[in-house]
Amino acid sequence: MKVLQERILRDGIVKSDGILKVDSFLNHQIDVPLLETLAMELYSRFSDKKVTKILTIETSGIAIAYAVARLFGVPLVFAKKKKSVNIDGDTYVAEIPSSNKKRVSQVILSKKFISSSDSVLIIDDILSNGGSLQGLISLVEAADATVAGLGIVIEKGFEEGGYRLRNLGYHLESLVIIEDMDPRTGSITFCDEGDCQ
Amino acid sequence: MKVLQERILRDGIVKSDGILKVDSFLNHQIDVPLLETLAMELYSRFSDKKVTKILTIETSGIAIAYAVARLFGVPLVFAKKKKSVNIDGDTYVAEIPSSNKKRVSQVILSKKFISSSDSVLIIDDILSNGGSLQGLISLVEAADATVAGLGIVIEKGFEEGGYRLRNLGYHLESLVIIEDMDPRTGSITFCDEGDCQ
Repeated sequence: MKVLQERILRDGIVKSDGILKVDSFLNHQIDVPLLETLAMELYSRFSDKKVTKILTIETSGIAIAYAVARLFGVPLVFAKKKKSVNIDGDTYVAEIPSSNKKRVSQVILSKKFISSSDSVLIIDDILSNGGSLQGLISLVEAADATVAGLGIVIEKGFEEGGYRLRNLGYHLESLVIIEDMDPRTGSITFCDEGDCQ
Repeated sequence: MKVLQERILRDGIVKSDGILKVDSFLNHQIDVPLLETLAMELYSRFSDKKVTKILTIETSGIAIAYAVARLFGVPLVFAKKKKSVNIDGDTYVAEIPSSNKKRVSQVILSKKFISSSDSVLIIDDILSNGGSLQGLISLVEAADATVAGLGIVIEKGFEEGGYRLRNLGYHLESLVIIEDMDPRTGSITFCDEGDCQ
């Protein structure tokens, strides 16, 4: 998606350890018109699917997932990373390894919000090693619901998450896929869509 | 706001310690058309103000703040509760006491996202003792920016946050104000707007 590639090239900052800072438009400050454009594109890529719920994980996936849910006209559910005082009753819990934080964390969802009749589109902002998506998929499958697809804003193609999830048969759409990033020069190269998927 | 009062009476669950569970429509699962209606009402209450940025705090404020930012056509910034690997450089940090978790936590904002020329509308889902709002106000004031106002979905009028913030002179608008809740009977009573503000 050209407009997003250009924005990443203009404002993204390549850090060491495979980290790309996109905090000026995606996950600390949010450029709302850009996000609406991204949501529209994600909507169009799954508009032929039955979607009854959008599922994401707190925190930085919430805005894009909300924008997509508005276009589909379905509820948004966001899974939580830790048990809060406001979650009680029956929950689904899955473990996710985090590529950034080098430790296993948990993702939690109240059972009452996903049922076996749901067809769930999972949305997130960044796909790296796929731990978060795998955790969200586990929650959907624990509910005997269907995974309608996985929609991602930025996929790090040089990490294994996308490759693994596509191999497992999931319909994964990423608006841009980064082939390589160099923290020394700051350069970022993208795969052409279709080329590296 | 009648539609929200009715939804709280229908789906809200009163817990002990002044906790109101609204997770089926506001902060775990989100009823998107309802949230759009709430955002429109918050927009209308501040539409005469100069607003250049919307500020909220992760996590549960993000969806409503995003919807309000879309209506104003301005960027959304969400402050973070802890330093992540993706925040570096100069930050503003404020301390917030949390009524739920009985401990002091921090709220963090990259300096580059709020400048002295900004007029910032702060949006959040729940107002209890006002700790989060106070933290967000501190961030705005540390940047020498202006607080355009404070927009809240549900204010717990029986806690002191709203009273204190109005006394400090801030323009605070809450879509509903809960006067009292009884965990034994599950009853919830609201203030009429204007009556308890």
